Amino acid sequence: MKTLVIISHPDLVNSSSQRFLRDSVAHDESVTLHHLDSCYPDGKIDAAKELALLKEHQRIIFQFPLYWYSSPALLKEWQDVVLSQGEGKLQGKEFGLVITIGVAETAYRVGGKEGQTIDRLTAPYQSVARYFGMNYLPNFCIYQFAYLTEEEQLTLVTDYHYYLTGPNSSALKDRTKWLLGELEKARARDLADPNQETLTYAQSHVLESYEEIAELDQTLAEFD
Amino acid sequence: MKTLVIISHPDLVNSSSQRFLRDSVAHDESVTLHHLDSCYPDGKIDAAKELALLKEHQRIIFQFPLYWYSSPALLKEWQDVVLSQGEGKLQGKEFGLVITIGVAETAYRVGGKEGQTIDRLTAPYQSVARYFGMNYLPNFCIYQFAYLTEEEQLTLVTDYHYYLTGPNSSALKDRTKWLLGELEKARARDLADPNQETLTYAQSHVLESYEEIAELDQTLAEFD
Repeated sequence: MKTLVIISHPDLVNSSSQRFLRDSVAHDESVTLHHLDSCYPDGKIDAAKELALLKEHQRIIFQFPLYWYSSPALLKEWQDVVLSQGEGKLQGKEFGLVITIGVAETAYRVGGKEGQTIDRLTAPYQSVARYFGMNYLPNFCIYQFAYLTEEEQLTLVTDYHYYLTGPNSSALKDRTKWLLGELEKARARDLADPNQETLTYAQSHVLESYEEIAELDQTLAEFD
Repeated sequence: MKTLVIISHPDLVNSSSQRFLRDSVAHDESVTLHHLDSCYPDGKIDAAKELALLKEHQRIIFQFPLYWYSSPALLKEWQDVVLSQGEGKLQGKEFGLVITIGVAETAYRVGGKEGQTIDRLTAPYQSVARYFGMNYLPNFCIYQFAYLTEEEQLTLVTDYHYYLTGPNSSALKDRTKWLLGELEKARARDLADPNQETLTYAQSHVLESYEEIAELDQTLAEFD
């Protein structure tokens, strides 16, 4: 499966969160990062080029900072230009949002400072997915990136990478299986890497957990 | 009270609904129609000019055709550029949406073809109003304008005019009072108008209904 990340951010270079996300998946060839503002500095979207890109990918992600409870204008322009020619071309693809948000997570709930949930604010995107017969993934929100601890940032790297390339499942078994695959790829990527030994060790450790989880799953299934 | 209608429509001249709405209120000096696409053909919004316009008006309306469950991109650009400088400048104003929709009203409900209501799809605008302390008016939606009968179009003229200039109330008493004022203004506008007699007759007739409604209201109030 290939994933297309359509990024809309007017100042990517100076955004620490966007740089961080880019670096998190730079090594993964199954992920295409596509920054609209760099490609179209004049704001004129090339529909044919975009439709060709969409065709090559099975998972489509819109990645943007929340501007006035929606995406920056350029991503809307992209939708106005590209989606109007998208009929019949997106059916069955997966579609998700990666949203960076400057306000704390607790603000986005009923009774919170913003009084609305992100799930509600993203209703127009859910309708786009529905219109084209795409499967909508749970929203991936990053709240107040600048305040994350180093450990939280490390978790974010994995979570983000999994969101882009893993199955649409938060089950531990699926996550572990995905991690095993990633470790295998990391080992294969550079056989001269001095970390090979660590990777091999991690792999056997994760494999052990995976087998344990699979066994537990089976035991639980017998109770059903 | 003055009303600013910020219109975002890439092809206003060829839109029968937009032309119709424009003609409906062309005579009313309390309404400013402001078409973004004509003002900014290059898409570069002048924030200072827009903020000056906002300052002069107490009711702000976004008027647009529904594109991918939201406004056309230019109105989002307007928000990105202008609202970021709007802090403290919109408090207490009224804010509403006039949305033209190509699909039937019945599609926009749970279980309907679109599966979402317009009230839900417009959540981002509600959050904008909330953020700035503006009072959100009920959405004014025009479904499938091209299919309206002549009588429905006439009703639309009054409903639209009332939405732009009347109080935020659908009570018959308030609507009738507003109509009386409009008739008075129409009489005063052109004293040589051959319709003066008709206007005077209409005015006395509406006044009579108004007094009757006021009386009924009072009777009902006594039962409370």
